[in-house]
Amino acid sequence: MAENIISKVALTIEYDGTAYAGWQYQENADTIQRQLEGACQSLFGDTVSLRGASRTDAGVHARGQVAAFNLPRPFSLDKLPSALNWHLPGDIKVSKAYLVPSDFNPVSWATGKIYSYYIFQRRQATALAGKYCWHISRELDIAAMNKAASYCIGTQDFMSFQAAGSSVVGTVRTLRHLFCRKQGDWLVITCIGDGFLYNMVRILAGTLVDFGLGKYPPENMQSIVAAGDRQAAGPTAPANGLFLQRVLYRPSLDRYPQL
Amino acid sequence: MAENIISKVALTIEYDGTAYAGWQYQENADTIQRQLEGACQSLFGDTVSLRGASRTDAGVHARGQVAAFNLPRPFSLDKLPSALNWHLPGDIKVSKAYLVPSDFNPVSWATGKIYSYYIFQRRQATALAGKYCWHISRELDIAAMNKAASYCIGTQDFMSFQAAGSSVVGTVRTLRHLFCRKQGDWLVITCIGDGFLYNMVRILAGTLVDFGLGKYPPENMQSIVAAGDRQAAGPTAPANGLFLQRVLYRPSLDRYPQL
Repeated sequence: MAENIISKVALTIEYDGTAYAGWQYQENADTIQRQLEGACQSLFGDTVSLRGASRTDAGVHARGQVAAFNLPRPFSLDKLPSALNWHLPGDIKVSKAYLVPSDFNPVSWATGKIYSYYIFQRRQATALAGKYCWHISRELDIAAMNKAASYCIGTQDFMSFQAAGSSVVGTVRTLRHLFCRKQGDWLVITCIGDGFLYNMVRILAGTLVDFGLGKYPPENMQSIVAAGDRQAAGPTAPANGLFLQRVLYRPSLDRYPQL
Repeated sequence: MAENIISKVALTIEYDGTAYAGWQYQENADTIQRQLEGACQSLFGDTVSLRGASRTDAGVHARGQVAAFNLPRPFSLDKLPSALNWHLPGDIKVSKAYLVPSDFNPVSWATGKIYSYYIFQRRQATALAGKYCWHISRELDIAAMNKAASYCIGTQDFMSFQAAGSSVVGTVRTLRHLFCRKQGDWLVITCIGDGFLYNMVRILAGTLVDFGLGKYPPENMQSIVAAGDRQAAGPTAPANGLFLQRVLYRPSLDRYPQL
């Protein structure tokens, strides 16, 4: 039966998080998951439960969120992204769709995630990308930021970079890459890790900015990490500068048949 | 007297043209010029007439529009961009301000302009930059586009690339650069010239896309130019893909004192 062979679909999704209360379904708020489930419902005429790889916060954007769902019934899968996009608003678009194994789980199968944090660094604000950055008019010392970032790489306890009040039990994570690069008026912080605590990337970004502003010498990052205390780290950078760029899988999603 | 020494100011301006009926002041529509004149009025408490280097169309964006005005009265010019930006909406920002000679004319002193036209080339549309591009889902042959573009370079009559109904007398212009480059899902057409006819960059972009789609061999660009007839060229590319990147002056604006 076709519905048994082609039973699970993974989508890669791009969105502008500005207008949404984050990824996760909420009863009384508009969320990305709700919009996608609504589009699936319109397309398939049946209720669909989507599972997303990352619960991005309100205002956070994505270039490569991944979500998976079981097909509610046999369906011609040709041009699935176009069909879903027809039902989606302009600020949420499915970029690709793959046929994945029926036990594919976008959360537990993920081997890592790539986030980028965008800082617009110029005296005057941007008229073109205000929704997509943190505007910092003061100069940032990028070498100091990268020196400080180097102390965060590796497998360690990131409790200092977890939003206060989180109840996650284990706070050890592996950060493979944390690097700042300048491109014109933009300073982009790229972060690759196997998993992230709640608000971790935004707190890392806010803390690196403190180093960029020269608040402490880069070596102090070691004691911030060691403190295991949210109070030791810097501020939480604003949500709108954060992009979920890609969720990593092994094998990569591109190894599965594309719809 | 200070007002005689510091009498004329040139601004570089960035804007998202989406919400506006273009640059030029209109009685019954919201325009960039109107917003800027309003901000000047709020700041100086007096009427200010701004002259812009380029009358960008409705929906066209700018990274480096230039406009000049005479100071209505002596005014402390420290932090002029920040003061104006305080009165401007988020989609219009003054990036820099310079003290220029009193006879500075942003139109006649301009030695050229740089425009970029952005095409988003992927099967599915972008959720993040729909306002800033022309989405083309079919493949474009960039080599063919650049071959065709090469026939447009130089000093020649660009009548074929002027919006029908324009009444400009001379249609000879010098195009110094017209080149397409691919960056990920983006195809960017950059155009540098001493001056442009009405809709010229958008008609050039639309015509290059026709070549990219393989409608004619690149060599046909020669006969399109030679025709001197708007009907010979391709469609006018949508306004929202076009950015006025920079207005060129000799000496450059950066040689004048910055406020």
